[in-house]
Amino acid sequence: MQDISEYLVKNKERFISELIHLLKIPSVSADPVYSQDVINASEAVMASLLEAGCDTAEICETNGYPIVYGEKIINPELPTVLVYGHYDVQPADPIDLWNSPPFEPVIKTTDIHPEGAIFARGACDDKGQMYMHVKALEFMVKTNQLPCNVKFMIEGEEEVGSENLGTFVAENKEKLANDIILISDTGMIANNVPSITTGLRGLSYVEVEVTGPNRDLHSGLYGGAVANPINVLTKMIAALHDENNHITIPGFYDKVEELSKEEREEMAKAPFSLENYKKALDINAVYGEKGYTTNERNSIRPTLDVNGIWGGYIGAGAKTVIASKAYAKISMRLVPHQDWKEITELFKTHFESLAPEGVTVKVTPHHGGQGYVTPIDNNAYKAASKAYETTFGKTPIPQRSGGSIPIVSLFEKELKSKTILMGFGLDSDAIHSPNEHFGIWNYLKGIETIPYFYQYFAELSK
Amino acid sequence: MQDISEYLVKNKERFISELIHLLKIPSVSADPVYSQDVINASEAVMASLLEAGCDTAEICETNGYPIVYGEKIINPELPTVLVYGHYDVQPADPIDLWNSPPFEPVIKTTDIHPEGAIFARGACDDKGQMYMHVKALEFMVKTNQLPCNVKFMIEGEEEVGSENLGTFVAENKEKLANDIILISDTGMIANNVPSITTGLRGLSYVEVEVTGPNRDLHSGLYGGAVANPINVLTKMIAALHDENNHITIPGFYDKVEELSKEEREEMAKAPFSLENYKKALDINAVYGEKGYTTNERNSIRPTLDVNGIWGGYIGAGAKTVIASKAYAKISMRLVPHQDWKEITELFKTHFESLAPEGVTVKVTPHHGGQGYVTPIDNNAYKAASKAYETTFGKTPIPQRSGGSIPIVSLFEKELKSKTILMGFGLDSDAIHSPNEHFGIWNYLKGIETIPYFYQYFAELSK
Repeated sequence: MQDISEYLVKNKERFISELIHLLKIPSVSADPVYSQDVINASEAVMASLLEAGCDTAEICETNGYPIVYGEKIINPELPTVLVYGHYDVQPADPIDLWNSPPFEPVIKTTDIHPEGAIFARGACDDKGQMYMHVKALEFMVKTNQLPCNVKFMIEGEEEVGSENLGTFVAENKEKLANDIILISDTGMIANNVPSITTGLRGLSYVEVEVTGPNRDLHSGLYGGAVANPINVLTKMIAALHDENNHITIPGFYDKVEELSKEEREEMAKAPFSLENYKKALDINAVYGEKGYTTNERNSIRPTLDVNGIWGGYIGAGAKTVIASKAYAKISMRLVPHQDWKEITELFKTHFESLAPEGVTVKVTPHHGGQGYVTPIDNNAYKAASKAYETTFGKTPIPQRSGGSIPIVSLFEKELKSKTILMGFGLDSDAIHSPNEHFGIWNYLKGIETIPYFYQYFAELSK
Repeated sequence: MQDISEYLVKNKERFISELIHLLKIPSVSADPVYSQDVINASEAVMASLLEAGCDTAEICETNGYPIVYGEKIINPELPTVLVYGHYDVQPADPIDLWNSPPFEPVIKTTDIHPEGAIFARGACDDKGQMYMHVKALEFMVKTNQLPCNVKFMIEGEEEVGSENLGTFVAENKEKLANDIILISDTGMIANNVPSITTGLRGLSYVEVEVTGPNRDLHSGLYGGAVANPINVLTKMIAALHDENNHITIPGFYDKVEELSKEEREEMAKAPFSLENYKKALDINAVYGEKGYTTNERNSIRPTLDVNGIWGGYIGAGAKTVIASKAYAKISMRLVPHQDWKEITELFKTHFESLAPEGVTVKVTPHHGGQGYVTPIDNNAYKAASKAYETTFGKTPIPQRSGGSIPIVSLFEKELKSKTILMGFGLDSDAIHSPNEHFGIWNYLKGIETIPYFYQYFAELSK
C-alpha cells in the first residue's frame, strides 16, 4: 500500500480546519435548544462523505435526529466495512469551567499533547474520531487503493441513548449488510501504549422524583413534622450501596460474570500508576467496591452513580424552605450478561420499596443498553492489531472499557456482525467534561492507521 | 377608646391599596439582583411612617440594607412601645408554582378567607403584618387617642439573618429605649381560635460543599473507581438522622429543655386535627422524631432539614457525568437553651468527620439565632391577651411556634426588654411558599386589635 505519510503532511492543515468547521456546530442532542444545530451537523457530515469520495450519501429521517448514511462500493464480491460514529455531542455545562468557549475550537499544547490538541466539545467524542474515518476513506479513494467496500452510518442521538437507531438498523439490514463494523468512539492507554477496546459496559439511566407535601413549606413551621423530600431522597440513595460499596439492589449481581484469577492477573499487567491516577484527579484516595482494583472497578464491575441531584432552594443566600419535590438522575454501568431492562426493573422495584410513608416516588427510565465483549481471535481483530503494529510499532493491548456504546450489542443481534473498537483518544481528553480536547497527533495517527485496517482485513478475508 | 370600626370601614380600600403598592416592590434580600428594589422598599416604608403621623422617620444606613426608624413621642413620661418588623421578603422561586406573579398582588377568596386574601410574596411575611402597625398608629394619631409613645424599627435583612441589626441595636440603645417590643411576624391557630406566640425556635443555617475529582468525569470511564461527590453527600446527609429520626450530631441534644408531662399535656389541648393537617398537605402520613407528637416536633423539638441540594447535570435529558462538586443548604431549628453558634460548631465538626477519603468537605455557616420564650405573667402579655378578647371575643391561647425570629433574644440582651408576638397570619397563608397570601379579614383585624394593646398596656403600666 502506498505510504500515507506524504499525503498526511500535504493535507494536515486542511484535515484540521475541516474538523474545526464541524466542531463549531453545537450539536447537543440532549437539549432541544440546539435542535437546529444538530440538523446542521448531519448535513455537514453528509457533505463531507460525498467530498471524501462516497458514491452516495443521504440524510435518513427517524423519529428523532437523522442518521447520515454513505457508501463506497467498489466490488460487491469484496468484504464490506461498516463505519459507525455519531455527530451529536454531550451538553457543555458546566460552561464556566471551560477555559475557552466549547464551540469555538482552539489549538493548545499540553504535556501529553506537545504537538497540540483541539479544545472543543466533541473534539474527541465523537466528531474527531468519526472524521478520521472520513479522511482515511478520502486517502484510499484519491490514491485508488481501497481494497474493500466501505459504508458509513453516522447518528445524532448517541449521547441520548440512540433511541431511534435500533428501528433504523432493523429496517435497513440489506443496506447495512457488512462483514465487520468499525467504531472509533473509545480510547487507548497512552500514545506510546496503544490498546484496542475489547469490552464495553452496559447502561441503565433513570430519573427519580420524590414528592412530599403538595407545596414548598416554611421549615420552621413544618420542619421535623413532615417528611422532607430531600432528606428522604438522600437516605434512599445512600441505601443503594452498603458499607463495602456493593450495590444493595436485590438480584443486581445475579448475572454478573466473575472473571477467573488468570483473567484478572492478565488485566493487571496493563500499565497503570495509582499515584498518577490520583494526581491527575487531585484526590487523596480512590474509592469503590471492596475487593477490586481501580481498573477492575471501572471495567469488569457494575456501578451505580448519581449523575445529577436537585431540589429546594439553590440560589444565592438562604431560604428556610422544605421543598415539595426532590430529583436525581442515576445511571448504572452494567457488565456483560446483565440485561439493562431487567436491571432497570430491579432498580425501580427496590427504589420504590425504600420510600417511607409520607412521600411518593416516581422512577422514570431514560435509556440504556447491553454490555459487549469482542472476540480477539477473529480476522478483524487481527487486522486491527496488525494495523496498530504498522503505525505505532507496537502490538496493541486488548482492554476492557468502562464506557458504554449500547448499540454495539444491537448491531450483533440485528446485523449478525462483530464490532472492532479502534479508539485513538486518551482518558485525559476530558470527554463529557469541560475542556474536552483531542490530540492532533492522535487525530492524524487515526487517519494513518485506519487504511491499514482496510488492507489487512481485506487480505485476511481472502 | 373611640371605636375604630367606623374608621376601618371608611378607609378599608385605601389600607388595602397602600399595602398592594408596597407588595409590588420585589424586595428580595437574599438575591443581589433585587438590591435596588430592597432600597426602594425602605424608602416607601419611611414615607408611610411620616404619612401615618410619626414626628420623625429616617433611613439608617448599615453595612447591609438600611433600617427604617420612626417615632411618635407624645410624652416621655408615658410607656414606650417599640414596633419591629421587616420590609424584605423571601425569594419567590419556584416561580412556576405561583398562580399569579408574586409581585403583582391580586385579591382572591379562599375557603379560609371568604372575604378575600391578597396573594403576593410578602403579603403576610412581613409587609402585611408590619403595615398593620403603621395603620394602627395612623388611627390613634388621627383620632388623638395615642396613650403611649411608639417607635418603629423596620429592617431589610430579616430573611437573610438580620446580619447588621445587632450592631445597629447595640449602637442605638438610647434611641431604641422602650418598655415593650411588639412584633407581628408570626401566626395564630385560626381566625376563630386566636393565639399568641410565646416561644420561638433558634436557627443555625449552613451551606456544605463536597469536592471529589478536580473536574467533572465520564461516569463510564471513572464510575465505581472514584468517590462520587453526590453519592458521598447523600450518605453524609443520611447519616445525620438515626432510624428514629433523632439527630446524630454528638452533643446536639445536651442543652435541650425537656418539657414536663404537665406542660406537654397543656400543649396537647390546643385544637389540632391530624387528618386535616395531612389533607392540607396531601400526605398519607406525618414523619418525624420518634416519641413526639406533630405539634411537639415542630415547636419544642430541634430539627435538621435540607433546604436545598444540587450537583451534577440537572438539565433536560441525560448526561453520564460524575460531578466534581456537590452542594447542600442545611438548617437546624433549635429550642431554648441551645446556643446556635455552639450547635453550628458541633455540626461542622461532625459533618467533616463523616467525609470518606477521596473527598474534601467545606462547611460555611450562613447565619443563625437563639430561641426565645416569652413570659405570660407580665403586663404586656396581659394587655395583648385583653386586646384579643376585645376584638375576637375570645381569650387567645399561648402557643410555641416552630419558626425563628433570631433577633428577639438579641433585643432582650441589648435593650433589656421583653417581646410580645402578636401574629395575625395563618399557617395556610403559605409564607415562604408559592402563592403566599394574607387574609383581608386578618389584615383589618390586626389594625383593629393593635390600638387596644396600646390602651391596655398604658393602663396596666400606670
